[in-house]
Amino acid sequence: MKELSAQARWETRTQRPLLVLAVLFALAYAVPIVDSAASRLLTVACTATEWVVWGAFAADYVVRLSLTRRRGAFVRTHWMDLCAVVLPLLQPLRLLRLVATLMLVGRRARMASQIRLTTYVAGSVVGLLMFGSLAVLSVERDSPNGNIRTLGDAVWWSFTTMTTVGYGDHAPTTGLGRVLAVGLMLSGIALLGVVTANIAAWFIARFEKDDVEERRQTQAIEALTEEVRALRAEVAALSGAVAVPEPAGEDRVL
Amino acid sequence: MKELSAQARWETRTQRPLLVLAVLFALAYAVPIVDSAASRLLTVACTATEWVVWGAFAADYVVRLSLTRRRGAFVRTHWMDLCAVVLPLLQPLRLLRLVATLMLVGRRARMASQIRLTTYVAGSVVGLLMFGSLAVLSVERDSPNGNIRTLGDAVWWSFTTMTTVGYGDHAPTTGLGRVLAVGLMLSGIALLGVVTANIAAWFIARFEKDDVEERRQTQAIEALTEEVRALRAEVAALSGAVAVPEPAGEDRVL
Amino acid sequence: MKELSAQARWETRTQRPLLVLAVLFALAYAVPIVDSAASRLLTVACTATEWVVWGAFAADYVVRLSLTRRRGAFVRTHWMDLCAVVLPLLQPLRLLRLVATLMLVGRRARMASQIRLTTYVAGSVVGLLMFGSLAVLSVERDSPNGNIRTLGDAVWWSFTTMTTVGYGDHAPTTGLGRVLAVGLMLSGIALLGVVTANIAAWFIARFEKDDVEERRQTQAIEALTEEVRALRAEVAALSGAVAVPEPAGEDRVL
Amino acid sequence: MKELSAQARWETRTQRPLLVLAVLFALAYAVPIVDSAASRLLTVACTATEWVVWGAFAADYVVRLSLTRRRGAFVRTHWMDLCAVVLPLLQPLRLLRLVATLMLVGRRARMASQIRLTTYVAGSVVGLLMFGSLAVLSVERDSPNGNIRTLGDAVWWSFTTMTTVGYGDHAPTTGLGRVLAVGLMLSGIALLGVVTANIAAWFIARFEKDDVEERRQTQAIEALTEEVRALRAEVAALSGAVAVPEPAGEDRVL
Repeated sequence: MKELSAQARWETRTQRPLLVLAVLFALAYAVPIVDSAASRLLTVACTATEWVVWGAFAADYVVRLSLTRRRGAFVRTHWMDLCAVVLPLLQPLRLLRLVATLMLVGRRARMASQIRLTTYVAGSVVGLLMFGSLAVLSVERDSPNGNIRTLGDAVWWSFTTMTTVGYGDHAPTTGLGRVLAVGLMLSGIALLGVVTANIAAWFIARFEKDDVEERRQTQAIEALTEEVRALRAEVAALSGAVAVPEPAGEDRVL
Repeated sequence: MKELSAQARWETRTQRPLLVLAVLFALAYAVPIVDSAASRLLTVACTATEWVVWGAFAADYVVRLSLTRRRGAFVRTHWMDLCAVVLPLLQPLRLLRLVATLMLVGRRARMASQIRLTTYVAGSVVGLLMFGSLAVLSVERDSPNGNIRTLGDAVWWSFTTMTTVGYGDHAPTTGLGRVLAVGLMLSGIALLGVVTANIAAWFIARFEKDDVEERRQTQAIEALTEEVRALRAEVAALSGAVAVPEPAGEDRVL
Repeated sequence: MKELSAQARWETRTQRPLLVLAVLFALAYAVPIVDSAASRLLTVACTATEWVVWGAFAADYVVRLSLTRRRGAFVRTHWMDLCAVVLPLLQPLRLLRLVATLMLVGRRARMASQIRLTTYVAGSVVGLLMFGSLAVLSVERDSPNGNIRTLGDAVWWSFTTMTTVGYGDHAPTTGLGRVLAVGLMLSGIALLGVVTANIAAWFIARFEKDDVEERRQTQAIEALTEEVRALRAEVAALSGAVAVPEPAGEDRVL
Repeated sequence: MKELSAQARWETRTQRPLLVLAVLFALAYAVPIVDSAASRLLTVACTATEWVVWGAFAADYVVRLSLTRRRGAFVRTHWMDLCAVVLPLLQPLRLLRLVATLMLVGRRARMASQIRLTTYVAGSVVGLLMFGSLAVLSVERDSPNGNIRTLGDAVWWSFTTMTTVGYGDHAPTTGLGRVLAVGLMLSGIALLGVVTANIAAWFIARFEKDDVEERRQTQAIEALTEEVRALRAEVAALSGAVAVPEPAGEDRVL
């Protein structure tokens, strides 16, 4: 434990507070969009919270960068963290890492990558549904030709987009809204792929489960090896029995 | 058979009547929606039927809860039944359990989970198509901006939603209608996943079927074991033949 | 060959003429829809062709039914043929059987079911695209609220429906048109499932191809068996060598 | 290296210049569509570039055809190149071959077909998104009923089409636009299939990775063979030991 680097110790200690800050940031982002008639005080408080949290994330990144030895390698391997500093809405993805770890408890190792991918895709879909709705609402509400003006419409639009149903009763008209929509569509395709692949893998794994044949085969070989080992011992004994009298016979010649 | 608990005996006896009641409930729910010009008498009769059936379901749950020993465990493991008491439209799902059991007759055990999942998903899709249409129709018919006003439109909209086509010529405008729509969309994704996974598993299972190699291998090992066993017997016989005369030879020395 | 039943001989002889008639029926169905300004003479000729072809199909079914011994079994196992008599537009499906047979030439047996399913799904999709477009056009053209009025619109609508894109710029408004649309949607889901399953099976089959391990294993066992067989012969020779002098030794004792 | 045919040497030398020309063609195609207010000079320059590049492609094809020995076989096996001469927008597909080759570096051979298919599908999707948008824009901009009039709308429409969302806020109205749309839809289905199949193959490959059983089995057989080989040597020694003294014994008799 002594060997934990200064950087590792910092990360262990700051993990929980940063998670709380990430959730706080999400709330501070959501409140003024959901409650469009929010008092000026609340809006200011939320904006202040966002900036403070953002400052904390940036400070955390700088501290970790200063604590590490190889700075070039750190920037390259932690590019995701840099993204999250630039776009703090990605911070709640920290929650996914926690959820994925919890999901893995007590499962077999060979399921690990499957569970992790499914968790990340499902989590990203839920996150995109929540924050995509909010972001599109905040962008489209002020667009002159926009048709997404209430939170209900935004959430409804998110679902029709992500499931690739796309009624067209609501659709983004601004550039940013459309970029978010493309993200939702692609996450929908990823979700469909993960759902299908999980079911297919489950069906096929069942086939393999009843491959008792395999195990019986190994047992057959082990039994055979035992048999041959016994045979060898017997032959060795025979060889002794035959070899011992022989010199005796030779002695007799003398 | 004597060991059947009071609870199990109750469940065996009430299974069929409750299935009939579930279908009755579905009919009583459907009739006033489909026949919007139904006479007041019919509407009242349907509502009465719904309440009576609901009472029967609730009574069944209470009886089973009182017959069981560990009540906490019962509530936890039978949460589905509690849901079905609160939302009696879920009761026809009982039919799915019956269908899944019938589908499994005469199939190999390794197909069981595949058949069961496919049956449940297909059944839920059919159920959602039927009752989702009815529920959306009853909700949207009275909505000022609604565009789903006939049973034909509702069924058509259900199909375009579940297959994720989503023309947008009809779309729900109320909150409840949209919640039902999301259910249909997700069931559509599940259906697509199950269809694809079934085909993929079928293709891949064919590959494995011609894995005669495996079986030939086990046969090879068994033949080998037989060979070695015969060898061992022979060596044992030889050992006897060699060991017996040897002392004779030693006797000769005396 | 002598053993071919009267029914089998009839089917072999009528196969080609019926295939030609099926294509003729399809043409006679398509022409008046595509060329809405067709002369009265052409329309009458097409209708006459349809009825004559239909009569030929019906006669073929009756002849086969009279030639078979077990009529009950014939009706049950050839229900598809009965459907095709009732709904002659299904007759061109005969072509699919031919295509599937041609596709199978020179392929490994384990691919058979995969190729057959893919051919049938792809063929049904193409057939539904062609005849679904024509049928929807003929139904929707005369609908007061219809928006599918040209062949181009009908084909375009078929593609947007089958790929589940569903822009909604064209959509059926009549009951029959919607039933056809649901058929197209479901065939689209089947197509997506078959495409995905084919790719997945192809990826996974590649894995198995480099399972040279398996084959090396069998070779290892065969080499081992050879080894043991040689050993057995050697021991048998030894046993002879030991057994022969032994009596000599015993002789010596005398 | 001396054995390289004249055709192969020509292809090696022209590979890079042709790749540059293909990209140049794409740019010359894109510029006048994107910048609809382009000066007359720029438009003329682009058109000239297109014709020059097209001439280079045609010349390259003719040179290769004249350098090859079996011309019939060349035309048949290089039909893709002929297509690319007729429709030069296909030329940037050359890039895909390069990307696929780069993606394969350092991967296992059994992944080759999977990586290649995924690269080609992903590349075609990106290419169709870019050039499909441009082509649809150039076609629909001048259509009287068209609703795709800006590059932003065209790209947005491409995404909604390829992900099969299909809002219907923008849709092609001309024949060529619809043909391009069908291409986008089909590529979207192919993309979904490839994504899903990749995930499924990845999940299932994990299962097989922990099939250490297999390897353990081969090791068991190899250990057994070693055992039997030792036994054989021992028996051979025994046979020598028994066989040599025997004649000595017989000598003794004399």
